[in-house]
Parts: sequence; structure tokens; C-alpha cells
Amino acid sequence: MAELSVRSVLVTGANRGLGLGLVQHFLRMPKPPQWIFAGCRDPKGQRAQELQNLASKHPNIIIIPLEVADPSSIKAAATKVGEHLGASGLNLLINNAGILKGNSLDTETLEDMREIYTTNTIGPLLMGQAFLPLLKKAAQGCPGSGLSCSKAAIINMSSYAGSIEDMYVWEYGQVVSYRCSKAALNMLSKCQSLAYKEHGILCVVLHPGWVQTDMGRSLSLLPPLTLDDSVQGILKVLSSLSEKDTGTFLDWEGKVMPW
Amino acid sequence: MAELSVRSVLVTGANRGLGLGLVQHFLRMPKPPQWIFAGCRDPKGQRAQELQNLASKHPNIIIIPLEVADPSSIKAAATKVGEHLGASGLNLLINNAGILKGNSLDTETLEDMREIYTTNTIGPLLMGQAFLPLLKKAAQGCPGSGLSCSKAAIINMSSYAGSIEDMYVWEYGQVVSYRCSKAALNMLSKCQSLAYKEHGILCVVLHPGWVQTDMGRSLSLLPPLTLDDSVQGILKVLSSLSEKDTGTFLDWEGKVMPW
Repeated sequence: MAELSVRSVLVTGANRGLGLGLVQHFLRMPKPPQWIFAGCRDPKGQRAQELQNLASKHPNIIIIPLEVADPSSIKAAATKVGEHLGASGLNLLINNAGILKGNSLDTETLEDMREIYTTNTIGPLLMGQAFLPLLKKAAQGCPGSGLSCSKAAIINMSSYAGSIEDMYVWEYGQVVSYRCSKAALNMLSKCQSLAYKEHGILCVVLHPGWVQTDMGRSLSLLPPLTLDDSVQGILKVLSSLSEKDTGTFLDWEGKVMPW
Repeated sequence: MAELSVRSVLVTGANRGLGLGLVQHFLRMPKPPQWIFAGCRDPKGQRAQELQNLASKHPNIIIIPLEVADPSSIKAAATKVGEHLGASGLNLLINNAGILKGNSLDTETLEDMREIYTTNTIGPLLMGQAFLPLLKKAAQGCPGSGLSCSKAAIINMSSYAGSIEDMYVWEYGQVVSYRCSKAALNMLSKCQSLAYKEHGILCVVLHPGWVQTDMGRSLSLLPPLTLDDSVQGILKVLSSLSEKDTGTFLDWEGKVMPW
């Protein structure tokens, strides 16, 4: 398996949970990225303190104000990232930002359905559109054949809860708006994989496991997986991805998930 | 196979295409429903003329003003339908209303993604919530064991284009907003099947075929299937559904579709 060698990565929702875990693990790699763009809704807020502390010690972390539900925020972020990168492109876009509300089928509302779809599904669509020029540039800069995360890739953080086939942990949370948004995100990822393949961009959708983060804990049981185990697994999976994997739905151990 | 025997049915988007075809075929059944509620956004508009003509000849058609993207319109419709039904419940809710825009991955916008999700996915969720009491009443009024469309059922009109596994006719239309909304609708249907089974309500999601309607023709080829063939097939499938089918994704010939 090839070592993951990424010059530049952008992680959305990077101030907490999985996103922060990914940033921390990228820093600990034998060859850390030259640029780790950490997208964050409110970089000055209390909830971004840990990310701010980390960035103050690691100059390769660049905090980018980013609200993925707002097209103008996304455009501003793409401009800013492009300025930092100069002549080089972006290797890896990790659409990690996501929200969940503990609604049941009976308590879902139009407003919650829309809000969660906007962040979890439309956000990754708009991010893909806005960062496509930078991803293309990275792909063009790595003329080797085949697709890989070291070249150019979009990783969408979905969930097993988005599997229509399996209806994972239905008994612990119906979370219909979340499940619908993740099923739609899975579809979006498949569309991105088909449309962006010709540009040399790999697209994969991941289930990070049921992880001990604030989101994971919002259901009624203690999640079985530690953040470290999930993130280590994810980075190992990313390093192993090749052309045959584009358009697939994998978990943190590389296992293929049912749609 | 049992004959479909439905005292009351509500079809959304009943003024054109598949919805109007369903109303016409219900009228031609050996034992037509006592009430055919025909939901329609603008009953007085030009596009509802054919439905109005039909209703003027068939007193069992009751046209209901209904905008499935508007929760207050849905609530008003449920009240109106309940008044007509009096002591009896609603056997069959067919969430047929849907919209499509011919966008590609590059041209999708936040506004189009939201609009299409609201009508195609959130609409069927809110319809299920609002008509649940009437569907429950119908199920309670048919004490026979097992689920069926003659007892109480929600039929969501999806599309093979919502299959993440197969990416049906991708080369003729990326229609990302539509595909995402239908994948999410498939998830919603699975959720409804799990939550409503205890109430005696069957839930199925259907692919009507690629049909010669205005929507079907909006892609670049002549659709292969006539409206009559599609609707005849759908009604045959509905008559055959039993408890084992709840939560499945079937086409107009009863074939199981991949998620």
C-alpha cells in the first residue's frame, strides 16, 4: 500500500469531532501536508479554541472561515485557498462538515429537512463545484496514470445511517432528515465520481464508524469506536484508494457498504 | 392475485402525466373507488383543464387544491379529505407529484437543489404525517391480517434515476438534484415502512418506467414506455403487494430495483 503523500488538504468542519481528529492525524504523518486548510464556521468562536491552539503551533494549518450552507462563503474560501496555493492545486477535499437532529419520522419538519439537506448534501455539491479548478490543477500536476488521494480526490463523509439497504441503528434513532441527507449525499458522490473521473479526480463516500464525538453521542448509546481508531482507519483507507474505488461507499476499515 | 379494491385513494400531482393517468385508470376499474381525491396545485389553471373535464363527468373524483411543498396547503387538504370521508379512512395515498430540472453537476444551484428536494422528498414526508390519521383509520377498518393496498398504503413515486447502484440513463441527463431527491425519497420510504408497519400501513416506492409524459420527454430521447402501459403495470403491481413487499423499491412490472 502506498504511503499517503498529500501536499494540500482541505477539511470542512475542522474545529471539532472527526474534522479536528483528521487535522491532528495529518500533522502526525511521517510527511505532513504542506497546507492543511481547516474550514470552520466560526473561527473566533469558543468551539474553535482547540483548532486555534493547534494552528498557533503548526504554521501549515491555515484556518479558513467556511459555512458550507452559504454559497458566497464557499466562493470566498475557494479564493482564499487558491491564493495560498499559488501555482499548485488542491490534492484532497474532505467534505466532513455535517449536522444531525434527533428527530423521528413524526417530528420532522420542512425546516429541519431543508437545513440538514443544505449542510449535508448541498454543501458538498457546492464545495465540489467551487474547488473543481483547484482539484483539476492538482490532477494535472501529477501526470501519473490512475486516480489516487495523493493526486486529486473528493472524500465525502457520509454514514452507514445513509444506507437504505441496511437501516443501521434504526432502533437507536430514526433521524429521518439525517438519513435522507446522507442517502442523497451517497448519490451525489456517485454523480461526482462519474462526472469528475475525466478530470483525474477520485470521489469516494465514507462511513467513519459510529464514533465517540458529540454527534455520535447524540444517540442513546455510547458509540463503540474511539475517534483515534476511526481517523487512523480513514487515513489508511485513503492511502489505499485507487481508480477502481472511485464511486464506492466504504467504511473506516475499507469495507464496501451497501447503498 | 387479489383484485385491487380501494374505497378511497388520493393521488398528488393528478392533473397531468402519470397522476392523471392513474386517475383515469382508477375510473376504468371493474369496481372503481368511491372517492378519488385528485390533488392539484392550481385546480383553476389551464393545466388542470383535462382533470376538470374528467371530474365534471365523474362525481367520485374530488379535486383537492394541494401544493406539496407547502405544509399549510397539506394540512388544509387533509382536513378537506377527512370531511369527505366522514367515518371512514383513506386506503391509498399515492405521492406522485414531482419535479425535475435538466441540470448537470456543473449547473446545479442551492436554490434548485432545495426546490426539488422540497417537492420530491419533503412533500411525501409531510403528506405521510398529515394523512397518517386517515390511513390508520382505514387500516383499523380492515381488520384482516397482513398489509395491502386495499387496506392502507403509501405509494411513493420515485425513479430508477434514484438508484445509486445503477445510475440509470446517466448519459441522457445528469439531473443531479432530481437523482439526489429520489435517492432521499427511497430512504424516506424505507423509514416510513419501518415506522408505519405497526399501524397496518404498507409503504412501497415505485419506478414507473421511463414514460412518455412531459417529464419523461424532458430528457433527450423519446421515452420507451407509453403512459397506459406504465399505469396498467402500476395498478397490477399495487394489487399484488402484500406484507413481504413493504419497504421495497419496485418497477411498474413488479421487478425489484437496486437502491
